[in-house]
Amino acid sequence: MKEFRVGVLASGRGTDFQSIVDAIEKGDLDATIAVLICNNKDAPVIERAKRHEIPWQHIDHRGKSRREFEEELVGVLKEREVDLVVFAGFMRLVTSHFIEHFRDRIINIHPSLLPSFPGTHAQRDALEWGVRVSGCTVHIVDESADGGPIVFQKAVPVQPEDSPENLADRILREEHKVLPHVIRLFAEGRVKVVGRRVFIDEEGREALRPV
Amino acid sequence: MKEFRVGVLASGRGTDFQSIVDAIEKGDLDATIAVLICNNKDAPVIERAKRHEIPWQHIDHRGKSRREFEEELVGVLKEREVDLVVFAGFMRLVTSHFIEHFRDRIINIHPSLLPSFPGTHAQRDALEWGVRVSGCTVHIVDESADGGPIVFQKAVPVQPEDSPENLADRILREEHKVLPHVIRLFAEGRVKVVGRRVFIDEEGREALRPV
Repeated sequence: MKEFRVGVLASGRGTDFQSIVDAIEKGDLDATIAVLICNNKDAPVIERAKRHEIPWQHIDHRGKSRREFEEELVGVLKEREVDLVVFAGFMRLVTSHFIEHFRDRIINIHPSLLPSFPGTHAQRDALEWGVRVSGCTVHIVDESADGGPIVFQKAVPVQPEDSPENLADRILREEHKVLPHVIRLFAEGRVKVVGRRVFIDEEGREALRPV
Repeated sequence: MKEFRVGVLASGRGTDFQSIVDAIEKGDLDATIAVLICNNKDAPVIERAKRHEIPWQHIDHRGKSRREFEEELVGVLKEREVDLVVFAGFMRLVTSHFIEHFRDRIINIHPSLLPSFPGTHAQRDALEWGVRVSGCTVHIVDESADGGPIVFQKAVPVQPEDSPENLADRILREEHKVLPHVIRLFAEGRVKVVGRRVFIDEEGREALRPV
């Protein structure tokens, strides 16, 4: 069977990236990280790639047009022949120019139960609203920021005394289970996007249960 | 100990109302339903009140101003000396005139994880969005429709093949556990509203766990 090649885009610490690496190394995920692309040369995620001997590339977004930046991303991802693009804490929005190259094959993980609390302060916003349940969402990346079809969600309880940091940590622990799980669903060819709904094929009924 | 008196407002079938009645009759909830107020004289919820010999009153909202309607509601609730007002499928919005009489002592149960999917078609909206997790929310009623401080939430899984009806049923089963539970927290004096956050006192830590 042809290997399933994942391109990961990240900007920061890279704990979501690490969860993919770990799942592959443990044999829980039959996939290859074809490349890590990072837009921030000082991001710790690059050290993680080096440590695990995963090809990585720094592509700076600064000093170029959005179009040029996206062209560079697309170039590397195509050259590495990726089947799935994973935004794992990637802090840049992309346009339809990028999206068209990988339509329905780009996923993002977001630390809330979308459509509640989109944007870059999801955990703080959830606490300020006072919800009792938040969570994480893996969705298809389309032209709407944080608004694409949802592949998977996991609920996480919130306590009124939570700080944004400890809520973020609790959600992150779930992200690290959810993200490899969803990549596995793609690798097994079980994900089908129909309009706003995402179907996981028959065998995948199991796949929507809590991980 | 003084009895804890609940006034329930409902407009329809009354299955949430029934869940309160059942919890009281089973001895799971130490409270009295002081009155059921229904704005629709043909609603099945009235039959339920009769069957359980619970005082009930039909107050029509039609043919009068919102202010007059609310005055009538307040009159009955005050006369019955209610400690807590419960909107259990009550299909009317209330204004600050009503709210001021029972500030932080009015709760509503809503079939989604607010702030996602406010309004009267929560289950259909959740399905159309394609979420994997929905649920129910009990919140304090304030001047914002469906936007008051959240007391309790329970997550409910969604399947892409769900119809609005079977998602509604699955959520309703949780509502019937959640609503008596939350009323119990109020009856035990354990609920404290601070701005947008709702705290349940020390012993109540347990109370935020899944019911």
